Amino acid sequence: LNKKELSLPAGVFAASLTPLKNDLSIDFDRLISHCRWLLDNGCNGIVVMGTTGEANSFSVKERMEILDALIEAEIPAHKLLAGTGCCSIPDTIELTKHAVSHNVGGVLMLPPFYYKNMSDEGLHAYFKIIIQQINNPDLKIYLYHIPPVSGVPFSHSLIKKLTSDFPETVIGIKDSSGDWQNMKSLCENFPGFKVYAGTEKYLLDILNIGGAGCISATTNLSCRPASKIFNDPYGNEADSIQKKVNALRSIIEKYPMIPALKLVMAEVSGQVEWTNVRPPQTKLKKADSTKLMEDLKSIYFPDEFV
Amino acid sequence: LNKKELSLPAGVFAASLTPLKNDLSIDFDRLISHCRWLLDNGCNGIVVMGTTGEANSFSVKERMEILDALIEAEIPAHKLLAGTGCCSIPDTIELTKHAVSHNVGGVLMLPPFYYKNMSDEGLHAYFKIIIQQINNPDLKIYLYHIPPVSGVPFSHSLIKKLTSDFPETVIGIKDSSGDWQNMKSLCENFPGFKVYAGTEKYLLDILNIGGAGCISATTNLSCRPASKIFNDPYGNEADSIQKKVNALRSIIEKYPMIPALKLVMAEVSGQVEWTNVRPPQTKLKKADSTKLMEDLKSIYFPDEFV
Repeated sequence: LNKKELSLPAGVFAASLTPLKNDLSIDFDRLISHCRWLLDNGCNGIVVMGTTGEANSFSVKERMEILDALIEAEIPAHKLLAGTGCCSIPDTIELTKHAVSHNVGGVLMLPPFYYKNMSDEGLHAYFKIIIQQINNPDLKIYLYHIPPVSGVPFSHSLIKKLTSDFPETVIGIKDSSGDWQNMKSLCENFPGFKVYAGTEKYLLDILNIGGAGCISATTNLSCRPASKIFNDPYGNEADSIQKKVNALRSIIEKYPMIPALKLVMAEVSGQVEWTNVRPPQTKLKKADSTKLMEDLKSIYFPDEFV
Repeated sequence: LNKKELSLPAGVFAASLTPLKNDLSIDFDRLISHCRWLLDNGCNGIVVMGTTGEANSFSVKERMEILDALIEAEIPAHKLLAGTGCCSIPDTIELTKHAVSHNVGGVLMLPPFYYKNMSDEGLHAYFKIIIQQINNPDLKIYLYHIPPVSGVPFSHSLIKKLTSDFPETVIGIKDSSGDWQNMKSLCENFPGFKVYAGTEKYLLDILNIGGAGCISATTNLSCRPASKIFNDPYGNEADSIQKKVNALRSIIEKYPMIPALKLVMAEVSGQVEWTNVRPPQTKLKKADSTKLMEDLKSIYFPDEFV
């Protein structure tokens, strides 16, 4: 395999959940099993330590241990997009160097998200220092645009400057704004830039305009049907499958995303530990759990999904 | 001195700036000198590693080194309020244990600020784990309410529950909401709870209703007059001094706070390295710097301030 074949694939990605033991430490074995299951069930790649993975609820050391464990378990490194963006330059550099040393397909980088309303110039300077200090052609950065959570958007002028200054390094984006017009505009205005929709709801739409695919929380549950869309976007079934995954997404979105997904994982697997979350996340309440599982049954989940 | 006398004082606090060398590493010597200067010029205490100190732009290790350096330099520990609140439980515990081991007057704790719209239950669980795992009667937590930056406010019901469950531990708050009604309501509804206004603009007002004082970015420049207000709030001069410090605050607020304060420090001290900031912060532009210093001259700064 050459470098190109070992680069991050297009397609359907799950932003993996991070299973926890009852003491809220990382359950590495369950995480490895889950990642294997995702790749065996249609995922082209996996984000580890994204928003869904509760990344910022872990220390730098824990985050490195998670990646070490997955690599040790022979999860293919080039299919991993590792979340490495922190608030500080030293933390982001430490995590990113570590991820690049494992030959991951790419790193998913939040902007520094504590201060709000920072200038494009300041955000550019942040990325420039990181790229220059890492100074490695294997570094492939995907920008993580998730303003509802980070509070710090990537403007198109900033993306323009980053991709112009570092064309071999800043090569893609996960757009979790929820704003289809932004995703469309990114695909149109930045040819060759790999745009992943932050939800599978726009999978067919973004493939139709040259996007790279989707990276989503809910594909932890719907990767199998979502992958059918990616594998045959012009086939007869694509539209009806898209409606099915949208239905699942709409149900999950009625609840807090991370505990809802973990509840469903617990129900489907029979492993109650799956419900563990780190505060400030909280487990789904009993009544919500019951309602959620009933809602999902109404769309024939899990039978028609997993 | 007994424990009581070694507890965090009331009064005027500066949220200290963090001086950086040209390579953006911490300038410990300049920081120590600045903290000594603040205490010699009216500050009753100092916040180290708050928002103004660019706390979240440093690694956990760097943040501990900063506190180590101040203690080593014999800055009185009980006058220090150390910012220790991170997004993750392990980071917050590590920083907090370290600060408590130095016998600081207290720790200033941001809520976990990555996820937004978390429930009071989830935020309470976060603080509960931290308090229980540290398990030390010397731990004195001041909540850091700064919703314009953190995006995660402390509701009064959450404060009620935290102060009820941990009355010896959760003992105060820095209210940087900018919302006087909130500060007033905290003083009225939580007797004995130490409320510091996040700006000296409300120093006289909050002292009048039983507040503990103020903790502010701009008192890096105006601690001398601000301390006169605290020392004689019912004196003839209090109102006119309050107007003077308000005038300084209003001028600084027209610019990005951290680079503006650092620019003024550089101009007053003749030490140009003071202007260094870590991205995403950016230095003040030349034209803004000139304008800012002119504006300050119009209120007789620095002569009537420092």
